[in-house]
Amino acid sequence: MVFKKITLIGRSEESFDRAVDDAIDRADETLNNVKWLEVDELGVEIAAVENREYQAEVTVAFELESPQE
Amino acid sequence: MVFKKITLIGRSEESFDRAVDDAIDRADETLNNVKWLEVDELGVEIAAVENREYQAEVTVAFELESPQE
Amino acid sequence: MVFKKITLIGRSEESFDRAVDDAIDRADETLNNVKWLEVDELGVEIAAVENREYQAEVTVAFELESPQE
Amino acid sequence: MVFKKITLIGRSEESFDRAVDDAIDRADETLNNVKWLEVDELGVEIAAVENREYQAEVTVAFELESPQE
Amino acid sequence: MVFKKITLIGRSEESFDRAVDDAIDRADETLNNVKWLEVDELGVEIAAVENREYQAEVTVAFELESPQE
Amino acid sequence: MVFKKITLIGRSEESFDRAVDDAIDRADETLNNVKWLEVDELGVEIAAVENREYQAEVTVAFELESPQE
Amino acid sequence: MVFKKITLIGRSEESFDRAVDDAIDRADETLNNVKWLEVDELGVEIAAVENREYQAEVTVAFELESPQE
Amino acid sequence: MVFKKITLIGRSEESFDRAVDDAIDRADETLNNVKWLEVDELGVEIAAVENREYQAEVTVAFELESPQE
Amino acid sequence: MVFKKITLIGRSEESFDRAVDDAIDRADETLNNVKWLEVDELGVEIAAVENREYQAEVTVAFELESPQE
Amino acid sequence: MVFKKITLIGRSEESFDRAVDDAIDRADETLNNVKWLEVDELGVEIAAVENREYQAEVTVAFELESPQE
Amino acid sequence: MVFKKITLIGRSEESFDRAVDDAIDRADETLNNVKWLEVDELGVEIAAVENREYQAEVTVAFELESPQE
Amino acid sequence: MVFKKITLIGRSEESFDRAVDDAIDRADETLNNVKWLEVDELGVEIAAVENREYQAEVTVAFELESPQE
Repeated sequence: MVFKKITLIGRSEESFDRAVDDAIDRADETLNNVKWLEVDELGVEIAAVENREYQAEVTVAFELESPQE
Repeated sequence: MVFKKITLIGRSEESFDRAVDDAIDRADETLNNVKWLEVDELGVEIAAVENREYQAEVTVAFELESPQE
Repeated sequence: MVFKKITLIGRSEESFDRAVDDAIDRADETLNNVKWLEVDELGVEIAAVENREYQAEVTVAFELESPQE
Repeated sequence: MVFKKITLIGRSEESFDRAVDDAIDRADETLNNVKWLEVDELGVEIAAVENREYQAEVTVAFELESPQE
Repeated sequence: MVFKKITLIGRSEESFDRAVDDAIDRADETLNNVKWLEVDELGVEIAAVENREYQAEVTVAFELESPQE
Repeated sequence: MVFKKITLIGRSEESFDRAVDDAIDRADETLNNVKWLEVDELGVEIAAVENREYQAEVTVAFELESPQE
Repeated sequence: MVFKKITLIGRSEESFDRAVDDAIDRADETLNNVKWLEVDELGVEIAAVENREYQAEVTVAFELESPQE
Repeated sequence: MVFKKITLIGRSEESFDRAVDDAIDRADETLNNVKWLEVDELGVEIAAVENREYQAEVTVAFELESPQE
Repeated sequence: MVFKKITLIGRSEESFDRAVDDAIDRADETLNNVKWLEVDELGVEIAAVENREYQAEVTVAFELESPQE
Repeated sequence: MVFKKITLIGRSEESFDRAVDDAIDRADETLNNVKWLEVDELGVEIAAVENREYQAEVTVAFELESPQE
Repeated sequence: MVFKKITLIGRSEESFDRAVDDAIDRADETLNNVKWLEVDELGVEIAAVENREYQAEVTVAFELESPQE
Repeated sequence: MVFKKITLIGRSEESFDRAVDDAIDRADETLNNVKWLEVDELGVEIAAVENREYQAEVTVAFELESPQE
């Protein structure tokens, strides 16, 4: 039972916590068996959006179920 | 007057700020002269807990008072 | 049109999000064309302040307008 | 002919070598043209399993064959 | 609207710039909404190829459109 | 329920796996609630010992039970 | 005679070499005694520009002449 | 015979060498079998002290004697 | 009250301690409210100077007083 | 009595331990006074060899005897 | 059949690609069995040369043939 | 004219400055055209020597003269 890790960037106009939640929500929609995540980087996009956009780059670990990538 | 550093992981179901506070609270209970802390890593435990558990690994610096480790 | 990056440390008695906002606010007061920021380090000052002071070291990127440093 | 890299965590109750092999075996089942792997991290899960579980986080490189992600 | 990041290695017999372009071209063929890339590592394969092969390991960020991994 | 991390160096004349086990064994003797460990560094002492001594520097995480450091 | 270092991001539609030159040119316009530079990061902006924009984050070292920041 | 590592910050108004010695002296007072140390970081405290205070964060390795943490 | 950090390289023909002092002296001449510094790198220039020149790259933190960069 | 460090990559079809031993054996054949080694990276070559080849990049430290490089 | 790695800095007045080639050319003149290289750092010397000198620090891996360092 | 870098560990019973000088002296005895050095790590050997031994791991850069490794 091997784990796989992927990297996502969650985004929120509210806070870093919500940006992380945003990434977890997305992972939960398409992956079974999400186990944990690690925060890699935090940043704020300022110029290209109307308000400040809090961004969290995270690595999500999940359990691979059957031989399919 | 030497400082010592130890590594703790605070945990909260609410936010990363509270997870950090959790570690400071614990350090304050058992250590005198806590000076500052540095956040080493942020993560979220998802599978092994009921809700999402925000975790903050922190390094706490405090002043050693007398020759005792 | 070259970008320049500077390093600031925002501070807040409330949360890390507010500490980051504090640094962005300061950058916006004196710089035009602030583009984005990256969070370098998070920490908490405990002994030298009355309450816990959340600190966020950030790197702010902005666009240089004309030849002046 | 571009290479792609993915991150897996192999697991074994026996040794780190077997944990790495576990990840290679899994990659070989679903990917053609696996080229090499790099070991990113080694760890041991102690509390959540019956015996010690040796874990190896590895990055696997393989050759992309045709335009499909 | 979450971003995802993947890691590719582009290759060229000409230059590092072309190796990076090679990876972007491949990403553009199979992914919509490619946003930016970061160069992780540069290297040259010498023994296993006829001429020198310039290689660029890059991380490509793109916007996930709908719930599908 | 805060976790604490300490750093140990296990040693073995046999292999790196045994050096890691050596550190876990020692942690288990004096600590309750050992959770997991991360391997920080592997090395071999050659001159100061009779045979090769495999060494593994590991970080051990355990759950703090009551206010005592 | 103290050196100071600042961080710039040069940009070019052509190549990474030109992006680095772009940053040096800008530094030369406003600073005397530019000594050397180190390349910190290379990246390509893809979505927000018409063509690919090669970017080079560099640290420029120059000699401070008289007490003025 | 497992080694343990702890992190101390030695301080001196004189030099970095003395700050390192300060940490070794403190370790020698409370620990048997101190083996070696590694310098992690050097810094100078300027505002919070009367003179400049040279600080050296060091990791001290010592041999654990009997089952006691 | 935001802090700002800048990077200087102090130089001395005598020792690393003096090279660090050299950078602090320079910072004190042009900046108010210098708080602390961190040593980033130590090096020695050998060929381009008559004697050995000890160099210390340091990051100096100071408090920004009023909206002016 | 200065130490010198060199970097080798040992290889084995059996295990990482044997790959490290392979590098030590080679160092012992041509160098006197080999003191210790540090493991820098572990990897597995898969495509270019018949079986899996475990590789260990190590840094070997030895004592320089007389003025000769 | 052990690999060895050495570190060279190639230099060119033209581009980083040529600076890397410069290092490979030099390695090929004196070493048999050069396998691959990794780019460690890129920089530009500005003050000490007539034109800009592009420099590439690279690590070259080659196969050791017989017991001779 | 390519540069080469080697890694040495200088040792002194007196100070880190002297440990660095020790490595430069050794390099000067056997190498022509030593250009500069970078300090990689500082440490102190305590148990295996009579007094404290300050150690400095440094990387020395020198210019290769003719095709000979």
